[in-house]
Amino acid sequence: MLKSLFLSIRQATVELAAPLSPEDMTVQSMPDASPTKWHLAHITWFFENFILKPHATGYEEFDSEFGFLFNSYYYSVGSMYARPRRGLVTRPSVQRVFDYRKHVDEAMVRLLEANPTSDVMFLASLGLHHEQQHQELILTDLKHLLFQNPMFPRYRQCVRSSMRESTSMNWATGKEGIHEVGFKGNGFCFDNETPRHRILLSPHAMADRLITNGEYREFIQDGGYNNSELWLSDGWAKITTEEWKKPFYWHDDLEREFTLNGLEAMDLNTPVTHLSFYEADAFARWAGCRLPTEFEWEVYTDGQTTQGNFVESNSLHPQARTSKDTQVFGDVWEWTMSAYTPYPGFQPLEGSLGEYNGKFMSSQMILRGGSCVTPQSHIRATYRNFFYPDARWQFSGLRLAKDI
Amino acid sequence: MLKSLFLSIRQATVELAAPLSPEDMTVQSMPDASPTKWHLAHITWFFENFILKPHATGYEEFDSEFGFLFNSYYYSVGSMYARPRRGLVTRPSVQRVFDYRKHVDEAMVRLLEANPTSDVMFLASLGLHHEQQHQELILTDLKHLLFQNPMFPRYRQCVRSSMRESTSMNWATGKEGIHEVGFKGNGFCFDNETPRHRILLSPHAMADRLITNGEYREFIQDGGYNNSELWLSDGWAKITTEEWKKPFYWHDDLEREFTLNGLEAMDLNTPVTHLSFYEADAFARWAGCRLPTEFEWEVYTDGQTTQGNFVESNSLHPQARTSKDTQVFGDVWEWTMSAYTPYPGFQPLEGSLGEYNGKFMSSQMILRGGSCVTPQSHIRATYRNFFYPDARWQFSGLRLAKDI
Amino acid sequence: MLKSLFLSIRQATVELAAPLSPEDMTVQSMPDASPTKWHLAHITWFFENFILKPHATGYEEFDSEFGFLFNSYYYSVGSMYARPRRGLVTRPSVQRVFDYRKHVDEAMVRLLEANPTSDVMFLASLGLHHEQQHQELILTDLKHLLFQNPMFPRYRQCVRSSMRESTSMNWATGKEGIHEVGFKGNGFCFDNETPRHRILLSPHAMADRLITNGEYREFIQDGGYNNSELWLSDGWAKITTEEWKKPFYWHDDLEREFTLNGLEAMDLNTPVTHLSFYEADAFARWAGCRLPTEFEWEVYTDGQTTQGNFVESNSLHPQARTSKDTQVFGDVWEWTMSAYTPYPGFQPLEGSLGEYNGKFMSSQMILRGGSCVTPQSHIRATYRNFFYPDARWQFSGLRLAKDI
Amino acid sequence: MLKSLFLSIRQATVELAAPLSPEDMTVQSMPDASPTKWHLAHITWFFENFILKPHATGYEEFDSEFGFLFNSYYYSVGSMYARPRRGLVTRPSVQRVFDYRKHVDEAMVRLLEANPTSDVMFLASLGLHHEQQHQELILTDLKHLLFQNPMFPRYRQCVRSSMRESTSMNWATGKEGIHEVGFKGNGFCFDNETPRHRILLSPHAMADRLITNGEYREFIQDGGYNNSELWLSDGWAKITTEEWKKPFYWHDDLEREFTLNGLEAMDLNTPVTHLSFYEADAFARWAGCRLPTEFEWEVYTDGQTTQGNFVESNSLHPQARTSKDTQVFGDVWEWTMSAYTPYPGFQPLEGSLGEYNGKFMSSQMILRGGSCVTPQSHIRATYRNFFYPDARWQFSGLRLAKDI
Repeated sequence: MLKSLFLSIRQATVELAAPLSPEDMTVQSMPDASPTKWHLAHITWFFENFILKPHATGYEEFDSEFGFLFNSYYYSVGSMYARPRRGLVTRPSVQRVFDYRKHVDEAMVRLLEANPTSDVMFLASLGLHHEQQHQELILTDLKHLLFQNPMFPRYRQCVRSSMRESTSMNWATGKEGIHEVGFKGNGFCFDNETPRHRILLSPHAMADRLITNGEYREFIQDGGYNNSELWLSDGWAKITTEEWKKPFYWHDDLEREFTLNGLEAMDLNTPVTHLSFYEADAFARWAGCRLPTEFEWEVYTDGQTTQGNFVESNSLHPQARTSKDTQVFGDVWEWTMSAYTPYPGFQPLEGSLGEYNGKFMSSQMILRGGSCVTPQSHIRATYRNFFYPDARWQFSGLRLAKDI
Repeated sequence: MLKSLFLSIRQATVELAAPLSPEDMTVQSMPDASPTKWHLAHITWFFENFILKPHATGYEEFDSEFGFLFNSYYYSVGSMYARPRRGLVTRPSVQRVFDYRKHVDEAMVRLLEANPTSDVMFLASLGLHHEQQHQELILTDLKHLLFQNPMFPRYRQCVRSSMRESTSMNWATGKEGIHEVGFKGNGFCFDNETPRHRILLSPHAMADRLITNGEYREFIQDGGYNNSELWLSDGWAKITTEEWKKPFYWHDDLEREFTLNGLEAMDLNTPVTHLSFYEADAFARWAGCRLPTEFEWEVYTDGQTTQGNFVESNSLHPQARTSKDTQVFGDVWEWTMSAYTPYPGFQPLEGSLGEYNGKFMSSQMILRGGSCVTPQSHIRATYRNFFYPDARWQFSGLRLAKDI
Repeated sequence: MLKSLFLSIRQATVELAAPLSPEDMTVQSMPDASPTKWHLAHITWFFENFILKPHATGYEEFDSEFGFLFNSYYYSVGSMYARPRRGLVTRPSVQRVFDYRKHVDEAMVRLLEANPTSDVMFLASLGLHHEQQHQELILTDLKHLLFQNPMFPRYRQCVRSSMRESTSMNWATGKEGIHEVGFKGNGFCFDNETPRHRILLSPHAMADRLITNGEYREFIQDGGYNNSELWLSDGWAKITTEEWKKPFYWHDDLEREFTLNGLEAMDLNTPVTHLSFYEADAFARWAGCRLPTEFEWEVYTDGQTTQGNFVESNSLHPQARTSKDTQVFGDVWEWTMSAYTPYPGFQPLEGSLGEYNGKFMSSQMILRGGSCVTPQSHIRATYRNFFYPDARWQFSGLRLAKDI
Repeated sequence: MLKSLFLSIRQATVELAAPLSPEDMTVQSMPDASPTKWHLAHITWFFENFILKPHATGYEEFDSEFGFLFNSYYYSVGSMYARPRRGLVTRPSVQRVFDYRKHVDEAMVRLLEANPTSDVMFLASLGLHHEQQHQELILTDLKHLLFQNPMFPRYRQCVRSSMRESTSMNWATGKEGIHEVGFKGNGFCFDNETPRHRILLSPHAMADRLITNGEYREFIQDGGYNNSELWLSDGWAKITTEEWKKPFYWHDDLEREFTLNGLEAMDLNTPVTHLSFYEADAFARWAGCRLPTEFEWEVYTDGQTTQGNFVESNSLHPQARTSKDTQVFGDVWEWTMSAYTPYPGFQPLEGSLGEYNGKFMSSQMILRGGSCVTPQSHIRATYRNFFYPDARWQFSGLRLAKDI
């Protein structure tokens, strides 16, 4: 069963690349983004380096140069090609990277068929969740790249539902007192979701849906980007220096936005996305509210299933909600007011894989819930995503909270 | 009594400037630091703008240009001269700034003598705590300036005690369960210390003293700055890019450090200082420990008095501890692992003064306890200082903590 | 005959692209360089914009977006996509750019077959010389790109002659007195080579060959890069800031250099190349000589034919000279000590094409003679090439001169 | 007589500093400018280092640290404190720098009274011309500094004549044929004015006066800064990036300009100044003319005396001309179209003083004639000043020329 999961997740990546030319897969549009080709090779290298080389007897490395080229940030594994230069490596070709994937996949299948140890099974699970993270990044990085093109090209034909009517926002009273947060159970989780521990919540309320394009446009039209009182100091410096006046992919006319389907008329009832933390925070202040903490969010999800608008729906864009949908999963990652710090008693994984999560625990903010480009099976209520507060190229939006 | 406090705190600032030439007081050595002259004027402008102009009948503004020149970051008060350019304003002269202080002091004294309202009394208290913060900054900014001079000049003759012997580090078990944190009582506090609220601590232990120069030098000599495993990713990027190999004011020989008394032989038993958060965090990891949270720190101080090595001792440098001293107050600000975020239910002050603290609540880390250049009457157990994780020009050091 | 010239020069460009993948043709490795795909499209746009659209009745523009994407710097034609971002445009694909070329070529052939006006014939000639310039840039920009790849890939198999023995350098006495310089005759020239005019040369001598790798390595080994006395102030600042210690494509071991044939053992008798003006100037000073002026160089070529090692030889690298070869044409562009300024009475071409040369007449230095990647039919004794003094990615070297 | 010249030039520097506070003399407003204090010390160091230490028996160095602090760019003398950091050195104080001057002056006077060698006399002359150059820089650097102050303070009360009427521009036909240029005679000159040599001029015409504020404002109002056709490519990039829309010290209203006398109403008949080469060149193109070459300018001055508006007039600003004045000397440095390159057979001074001029011979343009802040005795017809084409903080303007 792990083998079939392996094959299906690996295949999903290939399908993401299918609409792309070698040109599309090679270019890097900013230091934070990577070329599709690099993603394709890196997630393969992850299996080769952490599973096949240590655990598959007789495995032959595909190409000894690839470790240097496709390691991301595992310093303890060895040196690596500088991240902002990933787009300069035109060789190996895209075709050779696919050959690399084939080589590794065959070896992985042999290993998974041969009564793998629990170590190997854990590492394979980790590799697949890692691959799913990069599936999301392939799409967000590609969106950034296509946006550089003045012709605003489409990635592929996406599913679009007819526009829906707006729905009122209701408030759910947050549970008071002590709660448990963090991962519980037998399935997979990342180290940063552990250990499960008790926290104390103050009384608060949570909005039952996401903020929409229409609401965010009101904020803009009310002068939100010109009123320093609404902004954190760093945020004000950022929007002033960068001359930000709107979400990242909105057109100047505030009537259209760039999507993976090309430039489209904006649906005012669709959740607003591609906001920085600063913008989400400023909007919340303008609305007389605040962002939720990550624990308020996690407690709020209690009992909700991970249904929503994920990558599988091929919308590749958030959708206006239907009447009762709380939108906690899918659509957009929700900025919280919680900084990314370790849980009490946190222990990173041993060895190089300990570099996966723990070392990023400074200056980043927690986002929760997954997005329209997240694979559905990748998300959990306890899942902690994290980005710098000025990051906007992810599908990031917001839900309001308030003290009561 | 507020009047005499006013006069003594204002006088203390003047005494800090006494050893300085007009040249020393005018220059700005980096964007984050300000010239002494600017500090002298800004803290005076604070009284003029927030107290005298709104509350002192018939008050005549000293110079209408000063609002623009000496506002720091109160956007709601009006525009301001750009921070990195504060050192370019050679006029008004230092002498004129002292005239400005005299003009404002006289008006303030008249106001305080005339049965001031509680509003005025609160604002005057706030202004004095504000001035004390700038007293500390005058010294840290000046230290940075003098360090640019290849002759390493002395600020003034400081008190130096004879070197003390090293003392062992003991661990205090942290109290488990629910505690109250945040300001309580009738005295002054900043808005960011409120509201007092309950938090849940996990079991932990706190070191009973600060980390010393000698211990930090061991970390260096053990290759601490060359081992990426010890560092947060941002920290590793910082030390690599900036080629940091030691605390900010240490000499290359690891035997001397620059102090406000000039370049001096390093006392290995003195608390290490001028560390970034990244360095404090890496040291703690190397030591198999972690930094405390701000609440672990606050609970740890319970019942301790605010005794210690403050600016009044004229050491202007941390001191080796005597046997039983916990060093929680004075000597060095202690980095915590807590990001600077609002307390549940936090409300900033109304109006422009709401810009004092709240808008800096992103990407900064909490430090606690005050330093050797903090005025003693300025510090409290609930006091929350905050700086970016790469800041090193403050007197910042560390105390270890660990999970148990 | 212009038609057959057109077809053969257009075909030569296609052959340069033949060894390249779509990945290779899409990426931009620095702001000064452009992707092959961009070159392929830009030189086609030149014909479309300056010839077909104004002069070919009924011509249908291939794609109205291409003007914006592939204009280089003709402001009077319209706005253009920013140069440093040329590598971000993954669409149109390479294949579509070849379709564009075909569309334009067919229209050009029709026009050239139909008794073209002298205007059209001049513009077609200009377009072909323009294309030849970009043929050279395709190779130099590509060399820069491939060098970013840690595996140092080869562009294509190049011709390599067996190593030759070193030859002594002899001096030719420069002609004294008044000479005429600038273009004369009926063939094609650029506007910056005109008007032909009289200049006064002082007595001087010219070396009869180029400086070799071996001689330049002696300069390095003699501490040339560490001796500020040898350098112009700007040059010293450049090599200090950038930590230049050798020619651009030399390996750290000073034994190998990167070529379009891959990383190769260095032939000490081969002309040194990929020098900045600063390095050429410093070498000359070290040798007790100076660089020639552009007029000394031009007068020196008198009567010599444009024979040499050009792109047609498929060496794509300078070659060691045979005994009597003066190496004035081909191999490497020779830095002169002449700044790029207009000739007395210079008039740029009318209209947009006046932007071709004249507007670059500041802060650049003249190079003469063509290189191993220049098409032979492109070069003339009066040809003035120009680059900023810190440019190193062209095949640039030097010949010594001295006052006598 | 050299002694009295020494005393009077040294005294003139002191008088320039007289209106300044220590604050004014300490701050550096940009990397290209230096604090007055630095100038005062550097020109003194020049005498100490090049004359007293090698030639005055028994001379005692004033302070061994000063060589490091106040060397400008003589690499062969030793290392130096980085130029952009000159404003960070608050100690030595201004007072101590004056003590340094006194110490050196006394030793110099003793040396000059004691039958000095011709070497010493040459070096003393050089030192005095060097000091005069820095007198000019003191004023231009100070003007830049005061301009950073939003209150636009005055340096000192300057002489202002009543406004004059505009005068028509007439053209002087340039002499055709061979001319001699470069220094001739027995007085002092810099090495870059030599050797005198023959050059060939083409027929041309020179305007008999400078371009005025009024004419330049017409250029602006005609859209000069928005028309790329008028600009060199580097110039267009500069004005676009930096958003230049007017001369450096003009007020946005195009009615006032900042002067050393404070902000003043603009006199339209006054020569325009504080232009970059790019702006002078663009204006000339707009006017259908060009800038003169440095040799056209030098030949044009033949027989004219060095009369004009110099620093001694205490205008410290260009003046409208009287009817017949050609304005060749004083008022503003005139940009030429000549790049700064060595004369045929140029030999720099031997030793460290060879670093004075020769090493700046790249990427800079020649200016001729001196300005309103140049000491009159400092200027000659053969004097070659040089700045980068984007420099604007000098008193730089233009005169038109054209081919005929």
